[in-house]
Amino acid sequence: MSSSTNPTDFGFEKKIPDGDTMERQVCTDCGWVHYENPKVVVGSVVTFEDRFLLCKRAIHPRKGFWTLPAGFMEQHETTEEGARREAREEANADIRIRDLLAVYNVTHISQVQIMYRATLDRPEFSAGEESLDVRLFSWDEIPWNDLAFPTVYWALHQFRDTAHEDRIVPFTNAEGDMLKQSLEMLKR
Amino acid sequence: MSSSTNPTDFGFEKKIPDGDTMERQVCTDCGWVHYENPKVVVGSVVTFEDRFLLCKRAIHPRKGFWTLPAGFMEQHETTEEGARREAREEANADIRIRDLLAVYNVTHISQVQIMYRATLDRPEFSAGEESLDVRLFSWDEIPWNDLAFPTVYWALHQFRDTAHEDRIVPFTNAEGDMLKQSLEMLKR
Ligand SMILES: [Zn+2]
Ligand SMILES: [Zn+2]
Repeated sequence: MSSSTNPTDFGFEKKIPDGDTMERQVCTDCGWVHYENPKVVVGSVVTFEDRFLLCKRAIHPRKGFWTLPAGFMEQHETTEEGARREAREEANADIRIRDLLAVYNVTHISQVQIMYRATLDRPEFSAGEESLDVRLFSWDEIPWNDLAFPTVYWALHQFRDTAHEDRIVPFTNAEGDMLKQSLEMLKR
Repeated sequence: MSSSTNPTDFGFEKKIPDGDTMERQVCTDCGWVHYENPKVVVGSVVTFEDRFLLCKRAIHPRKGFWTLPAGFMEQHETTEEGARREAREEANADIRIRDLLAVYNVTHISQVQIMYRATLDRPEFSAGEESLDVRLFSWDEIPWNDLAFPTVYWALHQFRDTAHEDRIVPFTNAEGDMLKQSLEMLKR
């Protein structure tokens, strides 16, 4: 069995299903219509005292770059449960969710990223299967030139801008200078 | 072509794909694995002056019951764009999104509902294809016994509890009395 998740690698072709208005991938064997929906990524900015928990990715895309503990939400879990599960899977870390930091829209890949503020009670963690390394970094130690995704850059900065606030209005996509800086970073 | 979206009505059977740990629906003809993911619903509590815009559902489930303008997010749109699109489709209403009201988790159907506070500039609206009727209700006129879903009840009450606040921390699922009342409502 192929590990592809692209319908065009299987018995699908594009057509407009009855009663629909858009082309969809339809299985030519059995008629199943593959409706694509935006996917939810859940994750968190995890701190222990004044340091930030980052994971070095062991998997593509952006293997070897540093990211927040985050990943695709699964069926039948809450967004908070998903964020905790990802921290366990990627960093063997037991985190405490505080509140909602941001809702990002990454439209070109149809992702909604729901990011929380979270804490570690103790500095106990280690690299999970999807991580090459997991570390706590002070702000100045963060490997800014080796972050995996723009949203990691946004979440860290937006966290820091409101770190002293107990109740925050969640952020959305970065704009202006922060957006520019985060895209510059990706060129490296 | 069937309008079913249930893989078991097509050429699928449950098995554990190579490299996976859970049973998935797999097409017996071509091997396509149907990975199910949580779906995002985007919507809003829309007000004009001190009245609330509600839509009477023309479609199942809960046909004939009143709901907020909301629906499944589509590919390549933002959550805010999705909420505006739903208000146009269901109520022919051009809404202005203010801010994030709530993120609800409806785990038994694997939905994440992202609800905004929004306003109408003018009281211009009409029933779209998926609505039997669209109306503005004052708080006391809201058809509490005929609401479609518990999350409609939660969103309206959470909106009202913070209507005077400019900056709000978004709500999550209702608990306690509000949850009980919203489930009572569904029995009718
Ligand atoms: Zn098939
Ligand atoms: Zn097939």
